[in-house]
Amino acid sequence: MYRAPLEDMRFVIDEVLCIGETLGSLPRFEELGVGEDLTAALLDEGGKLAGEVLAPLRRGADMQPARCEDQKVVISPGYADAIRQLAQGGWFGISADADFGGQGLPELYGTAASEMWNGADMAFALAPILSSGAALAIASHATDELKAIYLEKLHTGEWTGTMNLTESGAGSDLGVMKTRAVPNGDHYLITGQKIYITWGDHDAVDNIVHLVLAKLPDAPEGSSGISLFLVPKFLVNADGSLGERNDVYPVSTEHKLGIHGSPTCVMAFGDQGGAVGYLVGEENRGLTCMFTMMNEARLKVGLQSLGATEGSYQLALAYAKDRVQGGVPIIEHADVKRMLLTMKALSEGMRALAYSEAVTMDLAHYGADAQRSMAQARIDLMIPVIKGWMTEVGVELTSLGVQVHGGMGYVEETGAAQYLRDVRITPIYEGTNGIQAADLVGRKLGRDGGSTMAAVLDMIRADAQDYLSRGGSLEIIGQCLLKAVAQQAESTEVILQMLSSNPEVAGAAAFDYMMQTGFLFGAWQLARGAAVAQAALKAGSDNEFYARKVATATFYAQSILPRCEGYAGSVANAGGALQDYPVGWL
Amino acid sequence: MYRAPLEDMRFVIDEVLCIGETLGSLPRFEELGVGEDLTAALLDEGGKLAGEVLAPLRRGADMQPARCEDQKVVISPGYADAIRQLAQGGWFGISADADFGGQGLPELYGTAASEMWNGADMAFALAPILSSGAALAIASHATDELKAIYLEKLHTGEWTGTMNLTESGAGSDLGVMKTRAVPNGDHYLITGQKIYITWGDHDAVDNIVHLVLAKLPDAPEGSSGISLFLVPKFLVNADGSLGERNDVYPVSTEHKLGIHGSPTCVMAFGDQGGAVGYLVGEENRGLTCMFTMMNEARLKVGLQSLGATEGSYQLALAYAKDRVQGGVPIIEHADVKRMLLTMKALSEGMRALAYSEAVTMDLAHYGADAQRSMAQARIDLMIPVIKGWMTEVGVELTSLGVQVHGGMGYVEETGAAQYLRDVRITPIYEGTNGIQAADLVGRKLGRDGGSTMAAVLDMIRADAQDYLSRGGSLEIIGQCLLKAVAQQAESTEVILQMLSSNPEVAGAAAFDYMMQTGFLFGAWQLARGAAVAQAALKAGSDNEFYARKVATATFYAQSILPRCEGYAGSVANAGGALQDYPVGWL
Repeated sequence: MYRAPLEDMRFVIDEVLCIGETLGSLPRFEELGVGEDLTAALLDEGGKLAGEVLAPLRRGADMQPARCEDQKVVISPGYADAIRQLAQGGWFGISADADFGGQGLPELYGTAASEMWNGADMAFALAPILSSGAALAIASHATDELKAIYLEKLHTGEWTGTMNLTESGAGSDLGVMKTRAVPNGDHYLITGQKIYITWGDHDAVDNIVHLVLAKLPDAPEGSSGISLFLVPKFLVNADGSLGERNDVYPVSTEHKLGIHGSPTCVMAFGDQGGAVGYLVGEENRGLTCMFTMMNEARLKVGLQSLGATEGSYQLALAYAKDRVQGGVPIIEHADVKRMLLTMKALSEGMRALAYSEAVTMDLAHYGADAQRSMAQARIDLMIPVIKGWMTEVGVELTSLGVQVHGGMGYVEETGAAQYLRDVRITPIYEGTNGIQAADLVGRKLGRDGGSTMAAVLDMIRADAQDYLSRGGSLEIIGQCLLKAVAQQAESTEVILQMLSSNPEVAGAAAFDYMMQTGFLFGAWQLARGAAVAQAALKAGSDNEFYARKVATATFYAQSILPRCEGYAGSVANAGGALQDYPVGWL
Repeated sequence: MYRAPLEDMRFVIDEVLCIGETLGSLPRFEELGVGEDLTAALLDEGGKLAGEVLAPLRRGADMQPARCEDQKVVISPGYADAIRQLAQGGWFGISADADFGGQGLPELYGTAASEMWNGADMAFALAPILSSGAALAIASHATDELKAIYLEKLHTGEWTGTMNLTESGAGSDLGVMKTRAVPNGDHYLITGQKIYITWGDHDAVDNIVHLVLAKLPDAPEGSSGISLFLVPKFLVNADGSLGERNDVYPVSTEHKLGIHGSPTCVMAFGDQGGAVGYLVGEENRGLTCMFTMMNEARLKVGLQSLGATEGSYQLALAYAKDRVQGGVPIIEHADVKRMLLTMKALSEGMRALAYSEAVTMDLAHYGADAQRSMAQARIDLMIPVIKGWMTEVGVELTSLGVQVHGGMGYVEETGAAQYLRDVRITPIYEGTNGIQAADLVGRKLGRDGGSTMAAVLDMIRADAQDYLSRGGSLEIIGQCLLKAVAQQAESTEVILQMLSSNPEVAGAAAFDYMMQTGFLFGAWQLARGAAVAQAALKAGSDNEFYARKVATATFYAQSILPRCEGYAGSVANAGGALQDYPVGWL
């Protein structure tokens, strides 16, 4: 059963990222006592909730999926109570504005919390993820009136929220959507059908706040003609009490490969004349409103992959210690050790990267003026890598988690296969990884000619140079990093040339470039932890934990980082047969 | 719905491997008319059976898995009739001895057939796979009396066969098994419980022939004390008619991630006193008997992966042509094209490799005296690569098949996820891929100091050199191959040094080495096809099919083969942090 890896999490937050110094002194956080004590208290409390309340629900929810009956969704056993406990702990609004019932804490703590919920039960964790996404859209774009009515309830977890984007004919391309919004006094009447609506309905809370993309009658064609609306399940009276049932209902739930506990609904709006909706942001600017929440949402999907991988690792590790073959526990077998260490090193690399960029996000929002724009450019560059690379890696690692179990991994009752089934959605939703790769290359590199990437590579190079002089394993890590950063610079140059000469080739190379980038960034952040750990050991610490950190990062640098070379080769050749291949020949 | 890729299969069999010349003239086959006409007839008939009879059963069997009721297994809808049709077509014994009801045809044709059954429905295809495995064990090691009774019925598909190896405490390590066999007149009485018995029971045929590993009362400890027994479901009278029900029953079926249609049984032997069993081979030589069938069985598992991947590709391709986003079918999107071409190129590489080594297997069995031992050494080297590499690649590619579908791929009714779930067993069973890697490195390289590998690399080098002079895409392919073969030689040298200095490091490096080897061998065999195709084009053919073959192999060489570099880097570093990492730190 999952236990939050508190020591690893605390190490990154306090010792590597030094949250007290980095974020604790910012005006937004200075009175909250952000620092080691708060980290410990939060992780402790969150870890208990994850391990004792959520994790025990994971297998049951897989076997008793959410289902739709008579226009209502019945959720899996124990979920309703778990949502209430999460709400009571203040976790729904951990990083949200204190003015509206949130805790006002750094995104870094919200990131740690999200890792824990996802480690315990990915399907359940989607409830708070979607809620905070909806709340963020309202906080960023809604009128004060709407904020006053809806925001606090979402932040406290009394209500939950959803995002309604996709239609059966409109997935990655939202411009062709058919859902309509017609002005009707102080509100709009929404009609249409949305699919893949995560946690679209349930009865664990009193109300659900749907954020819905729809088109106005006179809207321009395509994606610039889409507006965003708030559509509550129950209308809200002036005094805050609940009024009439709104005309929005779940039609069915999908039978999915995984995340069975998460109700993935087809939602019908306005079958009885029109669902009451309120405009959020300006007319026809709905996609822009959605874009402002995208970084947070995509970071969360990366965290899903991290959480599921950590859960998968813990299960595989316990099995490998217990299972005897050939007279020894299988963990002693060289190949089983390789699999487990690959899982461990990449999980820690993912965590190091995601947490580091949660800090970047906090700095982009709440840093000093001088910091903010640089931080925003960096997080914009990092997000497609975090979402794309971490979710690809998550699929690989949870599959290794199955493999460690041998035949037992293929039997569902072991629980190993569920991690793979659950995590398999993460490369798909919130923008497929193809879209992440295109975003990284076409937008994030393209818009500044690669200067943000170059700045990050400079930082990696400087760190690696520093490690060379530190001796021991750090020197090895530094060498590996220098080699990989040079390859990354070359691949980036190749991509930039493609972008100017033949953008379509860049698109063909984008995925491999994204993967190359992710493996490098993960190595870098893991190396930063190793540097902290080696310094502590040199200063006389006899804490084995530090020695482990150095060894894990060294393994990553020696055995995993070489993959970058393979990706670099594919990137360099993307202008060849891949580009030239006629699609009619597929 | 799956359609056997007849044109691709025929190309490899007739034009690349030239079955008529290579095998048609061998004494075993010379009167059978092995050659292009027979290839066409067999593929046509098998393709119809796969596409029209088996493929329509795949989704239904997934949703209505085999189940055990009252000590009987009820199989999925339509399977019983499909088994009978396969039997009537003579497919169960396609490569088996004509003396005992088989067709006596090359393993290459059996390989092509197996690809088709697996492409249509992997769970179903396990029935003929296990039957032919059991038949092969009997043909190789049983007495003439047992052969006379059991072999023809297995070859004609009137009866099916199973392999009973694993026990709950004895998986990869069979030495500790508890099943016992006590002599009792002309037979033995078997008692014990076996798990993971594929197609362990069903009522589609009149009898089931179980091959069972068990220990004699006075057997030596460990794996040299295991004997092999034939245990029929129904005893067989002297006149060949069925007699009493034997004391072997299914206890339950597993709830698995995939291959739901294949009954994976717990089998109880001797609960009512002892199941009647007949010794196969010598006492205490059961594992040796099993080893003689291992190459065939592992080739078949590789074919499962190929078949499932081809099925997954066809489904994804159809979806990508049909699904419009942004005004064009998504197949026009650069990243979707990349995914589909990756699936196509690797599938064709897998096919080229597997078929090529089916020929090697035929030569090892039926070739001239001078050929046989070299062919045997080569197939022994190839088999762990085919099983290990092809099944790893199959998981990657069927996962891409899900990804091409976007959100629809995660919904089970699409059928894309089933390919991933089904194929996920292939890296596990018939020896986990960790065991394949250890076999490749520890046994196959170790036993001849790498000389067979060196001989294969010489062949690749010679082919690549030849391609350099042919110009066009072949020249590019030749360059890529030369680079990769040089890396392979280096990695092999590294591994051989490890084997002599520190075998455990070799074990840690084995998996990456196996993957490096597989990607190279696949590229080589695909290149051989491209060479044939380019020659045909130069000779004036205007068949677009040939141009496609060249382009696909070029893509593989440019965009996939660079992965070898990544694996080489990991192999070279395996003596570092991976080796040094204490397992207690995991």
